[in-house]
Amino acid sequence: MTVKVSHTAEVQNLFKEASGLNNEQGSPRLKQLTLRIISDLAKIIEDLEVSDDEFWTAVDYFNRLGGRNEAGLLVAGLGLEHFLDLLQDAKDAQIGLSGGTPRTIEGPLYVAGAPLAEGQVRMDDGSEDGVATVMFLEGVVRDTDGQPVSGAVVDLWHANTLGNYSYFDKSQSDYNLRRRIVTDAEGRYRARSIVPSGYGCSPDGPTQECLDQLGRHGQRPAHIHFFISAPGHRHLTTQINLAGEQYLWDDFAYATRDGLIGDIQFIENAAAARDRGIDGSRFATLEFNFELQKAPAPVAEQRSARPRALQQV
Amino acid sequence: MTVKVSHTAEVQNLFKEASGLNNEQGSPRLKQLTLRIISDLAKIIEDLEVSDDEFWTAVDYFNRLGGRNEAGLLVAGLGLEHFLDLLQDAKDAQIGLSGGTPRTIEGPLYVAGAPLAEGQVRMDDGSEDGVATVMFLEGVVRDTDGQPVSGAVVDLWHANTLGNYSYFDKSQSDYNLRRRIVTDAEGRYRARSIVPSGYGCSPDGPTQECLDQLGRHGQRPAHIHFFISAPGHRHLTTQINLAGEQYLWDDFAYATRDGLIGDIQFIENAAAARDRGIDGSRFATLEFNFELQKAPAPVAEQRSARPRALQQV
Repeated sequence: MTVKVSHTAEVQNLFKEASGLNNEQGSPRLKQLTLRIISDLAKIIEDLEVSDDEFWTAVDYFNRLGGRNEAGLLVAGLGLEHFLDLLQDAKDAQIGLSGGTPRTIEGPLYVAGAPLAEGQVRMDDGSEDGVATVMFLEGVVRDTDGQPVSGAVVDLWHANTLGNYSYFDKSQSDYNLRRRIVTDAEGRYRARSIVPSGYGCSPDGPTQECLDQLGRHGQRPAHIHFFISAPGHRHLTTQINLAGEQYLWDDFAYATRDGLIGDIQFIENAAAARDRGIDGSRFATLEFNFELQKAPAPVAEQRSARPRALQQV
Repeated sequence: MTVKVSHTAEVQNLFKEASGLNNEQGSPRLKQLTLRIISDLAKIIEDLEVSDDEFWTAVDYFNRLGGRNEAGLLVAGLGLEHFLDLLQDAKDAQIGLSGGTPRTIEGPLYVAGAPLAEGQVRMDDGSEDGVATVMFLEGVVRDTDGQPVSGAVVDLWHANTLGNYSYFDKSQSDYNLRRRIVTDAEGRYRARSIVPSGYGCSPDGPTQECLDQLGRHGQRPAHIHFFISAPGHRHLTTQINLAGEQYLWDDFAYATRDGLIGDIQFIENAAAARDRGIDGSRFATLEFNFELQKAPAPVAEQRSARPRALQQV
């Protein structure tokens, strides 16, 4: 028979004490959360008869996970970040907030403070010229009444042709493939960039180690991340995932959603390429429009306070 | 009203997929554990209305915790390591295993491979001569019938006068205050060492950061860790916590237990000190005997497979 002690007065008091509920200092909220978390962990240990070896393997794993800064990657891979989106969708539905471009996960690779630009901007530093396919990305930001939103900040970031992100990939220049574009009077943003490749977890990292043991890959389709914000409108965190990608509907991070597929067009046309000022004959275009909800309160204009990287340049 | 989605088919299938239960590869055990853990986390998020900001603060915290290698310290501080002892005690009781010296937590600061010695051994490297109080520690390892166990390995480790442990504290020499002593024909171990100071969590570390918010200190009484093992006997992980210490019954790691209090004696006697070969007139003695249970099976002779440090010397 499974042996349990977590219901005993001794253990209940241990956890109450450990959570700080026997003192008056500190954060009542963290105490409440801590008591629930350690109590639930104890029940998992009992119910599933977690061995000491399993427990300490997990503790060691969390040290290694944090040592590689991969906790944010793991919560994406385990579907918890997507769960937060589904939960927020349901909260929105309950209070009648609907419409607009769907949200999807941010992922752990945003860097704050990318260069601001108005009008068309080039996002890549040219280091992959001749290797990458040039991509012309543009679209309009509108409100849910269909009116263009001028002055919106379209803060976008994506990987290079190796699936790597600047800042985290130190071989790239500062803010390569990261820009903030202010929409023009027609609500339009325009970027010249390169077609990104899909992202894959580091093969030697702890997230991939976990996924391996779960029989799962750690790949994402090629995609472009967006934060879109404008006064009076609700902040939007989303992504365009590119049509035709192998992992489009088999994304290890579960970010692909209906309404967020980017219909990228690959064009072979030397004259058109020359008109656009690029070498060779091949390029890609991608048009994607966004719709922002009205902000129900000023706080909704802001993204979450999630701790994020800020490049020192 | 609290909004919940974790019971929906969409989320249940998301978590099943994320846990690898829709594929045949990998570890069935890890899949089972993962599904339970992420499902319970989702319920916590819903029940306690965990905000996005709180969630991402936690993710960032776990990155910082692992970055400092403190996951083992946190599980001790939150009482989970002591809970594992209480659970093992209950499992023992259920199958009629009893007697012997109580177990208590290992803590995260063991280093494998300390020098082996027979008879009396000096554990300190002399670097705190004149600062530390010399401590003579000895005792007998017996079985639960009261018979001495010769050839037992007493693997002990403790902090210096600053509460720091060699290997983790790079200012100390290799294996300072860490030894493995083989008991003699009478089951006796003897060590000359120094009186340790209590341990405190790093004030700038993530464990102390959590404890601060729980209104708790991160201090332990002075103590000495032991692994004791001998063929035919059950491995014992325990500690002696020193009588008279401020934190004896207010240990942030909950390691102090009845039957594990070390009655250290401080002696002021110049002649006795000279007889023992030490300068000055003050020293300490500590006698502590251990009783080992018979091993119910050979596997019980071994400590857990918890990942541990191994000094490269």
